[in-house]
Amino acid sequence: MRKHRFSDIAILISVGWLSLFGLPVLALADPLPSWQQGDHKNAIIDFVKTTTDPDSGDFVPQQQRIAVFDNDGTLWSEQPYYFQLAYALDRAENAPEGALSEALQAAVNDRDLAAILEGGNQSLLDIVNVSHSGLTVDAFQNDVSAWLEEARHPKTGLAYTEMVFQPMLELLVYLRDAGYATYIVSGGGVDFMRVFAEDAYGIPPQNVMGSTGKLEVSREGGELALVKGGDIAGLDDGDGKPITIQRTLGQRPIIAVGNSDGDVPMLTWTTEGDGPRLGVLIHHTDAAREVAYDRESAIGRLDQGLDEAEQRQWILVDMAKDWRTVYDATLDGQSRREADPQEASQ
Amino acid sequence: MRKHRFSDIAILISVGWLSLFGLPVLALADPLPSWQQGDHKNAIIDFVKTTTDPDSGDFVPQQQRIAVFDNDGTLWSEQPYYFQLAYALDRAENAPEGALSEALQAAVNDRDLAAILEGGNQSLLDIVNVSHSGLTVDAFQNDVSAWLEEARHPKTGLAYTEMVFQPMLELLVYLRDAGYATYIVSGGGVDFMRVFAEDAYGIPPQNVMGSTGKLEVSREGGELALVKGGDIAGLDDGDGKPITIQRTLGQRPIIAVGNSDGDVPMLTWTTEGDGPRLGVLIHHTDAAREVAYDRESAIGRLDQGLDEAEQRQWILVDMAKDWRTVYDATLDGQSRREADPQEASQ
Repeated sequence: MRKHRFSDIAILISVGWLSLFGLPVLALADPLPSWQQGDHKNAIIDFVKTTTDPDSGDFVPQQQRIAVFDNDGTLWSEQPYYFQLAYALDRAENAPEGALSEALQAAVNDRDLAAILEGGNQSLLDIVNVSHSGLTVDAFQNDVSAWLEEARHPKTGLAYTEMVFQPMLELLVYLRDAGYATYIVSGGGVDFMRVFAEDAYGIPPQNVMGSTGKLEVSREGGELALVKGGDIAGLDDGDGKPITIQRTLGQRPIIAVGNSDGDVPMLTWTTEGDGPRLGVLIHHTDAAREVAYDRESAIGRLDQGLDEAEQRQWILVDMAKDWRTVYDATLDGQSRREADPQEASQ
Repeated sequence: MRKHRFSDIAILISVGWLSLFGLPVLALADPLPSWQQGDHKNAIIDFVKTTTDPDSGDFVPQQQRIAVFDNDGTLWSEQPYYFQLAYALDRAENAPEGALSEALQAAVNDRDLAAILEGGNQSLLDIVNVSHSGLTVDAFQNDVSAWLEEARHPKTGLAYTEMVFQPMLELLVYLRDAGYATYIVSGGGVDFMRVFAEDAYGIPPQNVMGSTGKLEVSREGGELALVKGGDIAGLDDGDGKPITIQRTLGQRPIIAVGNSDGDVPMLTWTTEGDGPRLGVLIHHTDAAREVAYDRESAIGRLDQGLDEAEQRQWILVDMAKDWRTVYDATLDGQSRREADPQEASQ
């Protein structure tokens, strides 16, 4: 090997370092190609740039770069009901004798959401407990994995993991490339989400927070096993979200992204912190490509959040206007790009 | 800049990469200088080498390299009582009228542990609640921080954060350099530990698990605040440890380190996993430099663990024999090194 002067080596290391982490790509290409050009996209990119620029007055050290995301309705769709409930309903179709009342079993088998909701939280818990209790976490997750392979959404016919939002995938990657740690903070069950979060979003199990059921230690098989006990041990929605984040991370996030009133306390706590903070709400305005709903929806209601977004200067993403693609580009993006060549050529 | 052939650049990048991460240092120097040469030190180093060597049959991918550590008695001392209890006792000396019974207030002021323990868990909770409830997490942590600055251990006269174990600090750094993520899983309170864990151990807040008190959202001051409600919401000891790890990380660790029977379920669950697993128990055998205690101790009892260590092939660290230094070398290590020049010259 030839000898090199130190300055040469330093330059080569820097070049190698940059290309290894894809920084030149970041600097040159559009990091959010599925987002329409406009104020919202610019505000997100500006925030990331200023908080990661050491010369900026709003620079945030890497260890504080925490970004939290709701899951249902924020990273993937949630209509006509949460996908975890779709799983629970499928598995409750043949509930063991006595697990569900006759009326509830009929409502489950008809997928009659109105009738199910009439029974309140207890009916929902009864349904969820059929699949979510009395088995180890490993066995539960194997079953969820099998279900995700075979189940298809009743309206789109897509696999549920195909209904993740392409613009949000880009945002997650963009943030991670900029040194942000990305976390899920969802009302959904933590064991359920961890089955697909790493493949679907690049978010590993230890970065997933969610609602929890009872969990018990069993030594019945001779080895220590963790058995799901059902019911709700911790509900990670509304005020539960900042509580879960404080308990788990011990610090206030810099960025919070959600889509419903259940995310308002998480966004409030995040953006009331000192220094630069970013709150983002996804507004489901796109009846053509997804579903349009907000103040009146039983699932994912966005009412208080619509009012607070303006007062608190949160970015209110208009799905129909701000997103060039909803799901993967091969599904709905191609036609839209062809219809708008100027945007497509950016 | 001169042009270089690709192979030159690749070599230079590799060299730069290695030196940036300190790998040559790891390969050449003793990573655990405060550990005596012997089977225990060798077993730890062999385990780390084989699980991080891509050519080894026991290779563990980096995202699975999870190492969990108990805190009290494992990373720092815990006698004559847990240091968090020392804080609670100091702050309960002037408890508000009616918070403690007259007898309990007297026991607190006399630091009469036997009398306090006679009152059972309720007495302990009453004492803890004086300092751990009715204030925000931020205010609590500011108070703990102030206490850690001023408080001194009743026997050693050291600041509590000076009573961290030097060999364990070296082990934490060694594991992190080898791509292991290091976590605390302690019966101690999570808000308390996060005040010092990053400075003392290099473990950031989000890598600290522990017992939790009630936490409530308050909007009294106009902004959303998280207020400690006292009592115990989740006890992270015994069977609670694997449950907390599953809830928080969603996966079984590769390495677990503890020192008492409260750590046995965590070590059991860890080492019953498939593939390479390492369990380590610290046995407090060193009356001269620390405290000698095990099967009969009220604090940090190690009884079941002593029996299981042999059956389960956990490493049982003999503090007196295996550690050249207990606390920082300037405190007790220098004299020991001078007394044993052969060891010191390694």
